[in-house]
Amino acid sequence: MHAVVDLTCQLVARASVTPDDGGCQALIADRLQTCGFQIEHLRFGEVDNLWAWHGSTGPTLAFLGHTDVVPAGDLSAWHSDPFRPEIRDGFLYGRGSADMKGSVAAMVVALERFVAAHPGHPGRVGLLLTSDEEGPTNLDGIRQVAARFRREQTRLDWCVVGEPSSREQLGDLIRVGRRGSLSGRLQINGVQGHVAYPQLAVNPVHRFAPVMAALVAEVWDQGNADFPPTSFQISNIAAGTGAGNVIPGQLRVDFNFRFSTASTAESLQRRVEALLQAHELDWSLDWNLSGAPFLAPPGGRLRETVVAVCRDLAGKEVEQSTGGGTSDGRFIAPLGTEVIELGPVNATIHKADECVRLSDLQRLPDLYQAICQRLLLD
Amino acid sequence: MHAVVDLTCQLVARASVTPDDGGCQALIADRLQTCGFQIEHLRFGEVDNLWAWHGSTGPTLAFLGHTDVVPAGDLSAWHSDPFRPEIRDGFLYGRGSADMKGSVAAMVVALERFVAAHPGHPGRVGLLLTSDEEGPTNLDGIRQVAARFRREQTRLDWCVVGEPSSREQLGDLIRVGRRGSLSGRLQINGVQGHVAYPQLAVNPVHRFAPVMAALVAEVWDQGNADFPPTSFQISNIAAGTGAGNVIPGQLRVDFNFRFSTASTAESLQRRVEALLQAHELDWSLDWNLSGAPFLAPPGGRLRETVVAVCRDLAGKEVEQSTGGGTSDGRFIAPLGTEVIELGPVNATIHKADECVRLSDLQRLPDLYQAICQRLLLD
Ligand SMILES: [Zn+2]
Ligand SMILES: [Zn+2]
Repeated sequence: MHAVVDLTCQLVARASVTPDDGGCQALIADRLQTCGFQIEHLRFGEVDNLWAWHGSTGPTLAFLGHTDVVPAGDLSAWHSDPFRPEIRDGFLYGRGSADMKGSVAAMVVALERFVAAHPGHPGRVGLLLTSDEEGPTNLDGIRQVAARFRREQTRLDWCVVGEPSSREQLGDLIRVGRRGSLSGRLQINGVQGHVAYPQLAVNPVHRFAPVMAALVAEVWDQGNADFPPTSFQISNIAAGTGAGNVIPGQLRVDFNFRFSTASTAESLQRRVEALLQAHELDWSLDWNLSGAPFLAPPGGRLRETVVAVCRDLAGKEVEQSTGGGTSDGRFIAPLGTEVIELGPVNATIHKADECVRLSDLQRLPDLYQAICQRLLLD
Repeated sequence: MHAVVDLTCQLVARASVTPDDGGCQALIADRLQTCGFQIEHLRFGEVDNLWAWHGSTGPTLAFLGHTDVVPAGDLSAWHSDPFRPEIRDGFLYGRGSADMKGSVAAMVVALERFVAAHPGHPGRVGLLLTSDEEGPTNLDGIRQVAARFRREQTRLDWCVVGEPSSREQLGDLIRVGRRGSLSGRLQINGVQGHVAYPQLAVNPVHRFAPVMAALVAEVWDQGNADFPPTSFQISNIAAGTGAGNVIPGQLRVDFNFRFSTASTAESLQRRVEALLQAHELDWSLDWNLSGAPFLAPPGGRLRETVVAVCRDLAGKEVEQSTGGGTSDGRFIAPLGTEVIELGPVNATIHKADECVRLSDLQRLPDLYQAICQRLLLD
């Protein structure tokens, strides 16, 4: 069996629902150590993280992946055991096969081949793995690792994230950045009362109504070449006692920005607060920035390299997108690292019968290895 | 002890939390029957209602009251047992003393005196009592009775409701009408989705935002000589799964109009629906008209009489108001009846230490009796 398929199967068989690593990182550390990689196990809380690298001077290319997976969900919806990898009709089935144990296996195989072929390569290649990507907070995964890298001034010039980026064919789409995510929890205070005596009450829903209309109508930015315009969405709104004759005393509104590099978290916060202030509301607002936007700049060395490698594989242009949710890349980019996401087709991730096309999986190590070669050897 | 004080004490001692009448109506029926009144017990469901009348031809003046009371609430807040009437410092304390067993007792005493003094009086006087006024629906109280009166074409020309209308002194304020109450339960349908993919979702909160701003800003009418302008209040609003990254699929909004005779329920409904239609929303809306507005017209015989009687008592002008919530009068007015509300000071109603000033209570039968005399004898 092809080495990458074999390793993917071994990883899928190690059930590793967040934050459990299931022994995946130990297996990988053994293999890379055998090839001369330096190994650092970084355990924070109940989360395993692994940093393995080869080479010492010059620029660093790191591959970033996660060994944790989302739960299997409804088992009856699966046609085979989610944690017993099974090959059917040209696909490898199993939880994590696409997100992202296939990518992780391909990174390992690519790195093994690269250092075997170029044991004295200039620069440094590395593999960074977390087991806390699919959880709600990433607190003890990439956040802690990135903080440590920053403290220790670990240099990362380029980072390839293995998230399943492809749409229909391997390499037809790469992520060259991600939007930022900024959330607000707003409370508008009024004065509760009876609907028959509105003059004695202050209805916070009414006070907020023109502000809400303005927030919804606002054009936050026009986006730019790489990003769609910033979007604003109210996710939750609640006021009222349930009784039909009571004017509520409080209104709570949760909202979220997905924002482009055409805006900053600070500018969005300032504009929202200015709107609230202009309407003379009694309000309080808690902000939570889950991630700033990041972008591998057009013309950047990694971005150009990954685009070229994919173009060579597919024989056509690759789509360079910043769509979708956030990714662990948002914690690496602030280290000054150019970050690109490239992985298999994402059609089945987080679903029953998650799978990866065998032919894609077999070509993925070639892509990753080609990136190493062009960046460090050319 | 003064007859009206004595009877009020007897009624307060009969704990009668809605819909329980506690034997109050039986006691009153006995007394009025003794004076020659005809008695009809109208029990609907678990609600006792009483209709007692004297006289047969000519115009009818009915007094309307309720024998049920709201619960005592926190007993530790009371300085005496709420169901053991107690006289302290010139006040009679007890649940229902002001709302409205004092008024009911005064009506009984006034009617007894009136028919004793004028056994062959022209026209008809009556007392209508329910025990379902303080409940949420009034279904088996005044609604059923009014429906029956309508079916049987029972003629009611004038109706004096004993609700505690006075502000600081007995007779300083009467209610000459009440606003209508119209409620709406609105649902706006959208398409649920993830905040990272707003193009695949339809956020019902966003769709509703400009409509909400318009509803809140709308001037529904200017009111008129007797009514303040119609008011619109949102009482409940809710959308969202609780998660911060999910665009909600539905929004629910409850609202209520308190409306003057310058608008109609139909006109308000039409205007709200036109606004919704103009914004091309996917919506559904359930309307509930709990009461149309009613008004004893300026110059009406009952209104002029009550104003004159109160003016004679207080020696100054009486305030003629349509403020406050709804009242059982809204079910009587549509029978073609002129309705006025006159009762004691309402400062303590529905509270701990509910009480009525003894001197007010003792003069209330005089007021009610004077109304009988001026309407039927003058
Ligand atoms: Zn993933
Ligand atoms: Zn009452």
